[in-house]
Amino acid sequence: MEERIKVSILLDYYGVLLTDKQLDIMNLYYNDDLSLSEISELNNTSRQAIHDLIKRCNKLLTEYEEKLGLMNSNFMFERNKKSILGKINIVLSNISNLSESARLIEEIKSDIIKL
Amino acid sequence: MEERIKVSILLDYYGVLLTDKQLDIMNLYYNDDLSLSEISELNNTSRQAIHDLIKRCNKLLTEYEEKLGLMNSNFMFERNKKSILGKINIVLSNISNLSESARLIEEIKSDIIKL
Repeated sequence: MEERIKVSILLDYYGVLLTDKQLDIMNLYYNDDLSLSEISELNNTSRQAIHDLIKRCNKLLTEYEEKLGLMNSNFMFERNKKSILGKINIVLSNISNLSESARLIEEIKSDIIKL
Repeated sequence: MEERIKVSILLDYYGVLLTDKQLDIMNLYYNDDLSLSEISELNNTSRQAIHDLIKRCNKLLTEYEEKLGLMNSNFMFERNKKSILGKINIVLSNISNLSESARLIEEIKSDIIKL
């Protein structure tokens, strides 16, 4: 996954754990695509200070993901959900074929237990 | 939910975000049921210091839950999962009744989409 997109997704999960100021600057950089210079002007601070803050927040977000793994869990959850819905659709379109439907429902049950 | 049980569950979700020492003391108090005095002896510190640490960690755990809501999300997720599995079981035991099964599978599909 491209770094910029990954950080943007991590912000969705863990942005609430940053301070308001940190979150604001991270959003300006990663979601609104402002440059370091533009952000430093907006905040009346140096380009270097913004650079350091972004680097520190990146480290924080990565550590949260290493510890809590919400992004990764959700990725796997969505993959499972898509697979289950695919099977449900086959059952629905194929409900007259009882033995195949029963087999698929057993499989869906097993998928849900593993969720 | 009883406070002690709630904190013990919050530790399952957010314990990784505490320091090793904090997590150790919280586990001794909430999971191993040691008293403040016993924990303070083990750690060569005062009963008051342990009390303060536990109070501070409780606040941290509560704040994490307010911000990330993992305990609450998982509670709702497990409730949905139980409901879906209940419906799957009805379909499985009742597969010969096609119209009822089809209706339930539609309902299951809708439940999964809302997960």
